[in-house]
Amino acid sequence: MLIDPASLPWRDAYKLMIGSILPRPIAWVSTVSKEGVFNLAPFSFFTVVAAEPMTICFSPMRHTNGSKKDTLINIEETGEFVVNIVSEPLAEAMNQTSAALAPEVDEFQVAGLTPVPSESVQVPRVGESLVAYECRLLRVVHVGEAKAGAGALVLGTVQRMYVADEVLDQGRIRTDVLQPIGRMAGNDYTRCTDRFAIERP
Amino acid sequence: MLIDPASLPWRDAYKLMIGSILPRPIAWVSTVSKEGVFNLAPFSFFTVVAAEPMTICFSPMRHTNGSKKDTLINIEETGEFVVNIVSEPLAEAMNQTSAALAPEVDEFQVAGLTPVPSESVQVPRVGESLVAYECRLLRVVHVGEAKAGAGALVLGTVQRMYVADEVLDQGRIRTDVLQPIGRMAGNDYTRCTDRFAIERP
Repeated sequence: MLIDPASLPWRDAYKLMIGSILPRPIAWVSTVSKEGVFNLAPFSFFTVVAAEPMTICFSPMRHTNGSKKDTLINIEETGEFVVNIVSEPLAEAMNQTSAALAPEVDEFQVAGLTPVPSESVQVPRVGESLVAYECRLLRVVHVGEAKAGAGALVLGTVQRMYVADEVLDQGRIRTDVLQPIGRMAGNDYTRCTDRFAIERP
Repeated sequence: MLIDPASLPWRDAYKLMIGSILPRPIAWVSTVSKEGVFNLAPFSFFTVVAAEPMTICFSPMRHTNGSKKDTLINIEETGEFVVNIVSEPLAEAMNQTSAALAPEVDEFQVAGLTPVPSESVQVPRVGESLVAYECRLLRVVHVGEAKAGAGALVLGTVQRMYVADEVLDQGRIRTDVLQPIGRMAGNDYTRCTDRFAIERP
């Protein structure tokens, strides 16, 4: 079946993508508003851009009412954010921070998480996360008109990377300590426990 | 432990990211050179940007010798590419296309895959893939100097989406038919079989 995405309501296009572009890593993004309120929310449109300079990106789509999410507003105002990595024991807390809450609500408090000061930015990291990327905004690439379905690719240059000692082994991340989870469609997540290896040619 | 990525060789920064930003979906990207040679290669720095217009992106990093990969060269020359989705039975063939081969080598032939004409672009899709995104280049965001470690975020607007009938169920993708795999660090991949669900707040 060949589908012309321009003929689909954005929600149907969205469903087809989240069902086929997976499993997706989760960027749990902390920011601070210009009034100083902490914000924290998960995004699964997230990947690596470059290793030198260390650069990552994620795309916060607009709310279904067409408005920008607090995360994007804060980043555009302050130029800073932290991407925290979600280990399986943090899944419930991460999910609590996915609710659409008022800008004055601090999701760290809602989910019982510890904001820990970063070294290079004013935005705190999630103390419970084993890995965190302190980022300065490089660029936002807006895609689509300012309404539901539009995306905004946020590129960040990593200023400092936090790695908990127990997860680091001679410059590599210990997967079984990190216990990463991937985002699937709907309400589903996947563990990364059912693995196989293929030698590269 | 706090790491300043600017103090790391690019390869060490790379290892830390692929070990902590995971599991990653795989873009198996087909392109055509201006001489008409088909190219096919996998990239795991891949995600969704927007639903309207349907937009996806991936980042082909440079070869370790600093040169651009054929995929990027072809896309910059032709403005077109197809992102094919890798189901588990295609993992071996996908891996064969990850070798650094000369530009005149057709990876479809190397891996025994079927190039099937696309509807909206001159680039063929992988006939064996259950889902494919026919894309027109929107923009390339180059990050870093022109050497190893640099990245190039390639954004594509989806012109047509191919979905095999057996994988589609009332507008949703059937995960257990698609059998998606995720990229981990090193030579590892993960199946998406060990799942759990959390109701959103």
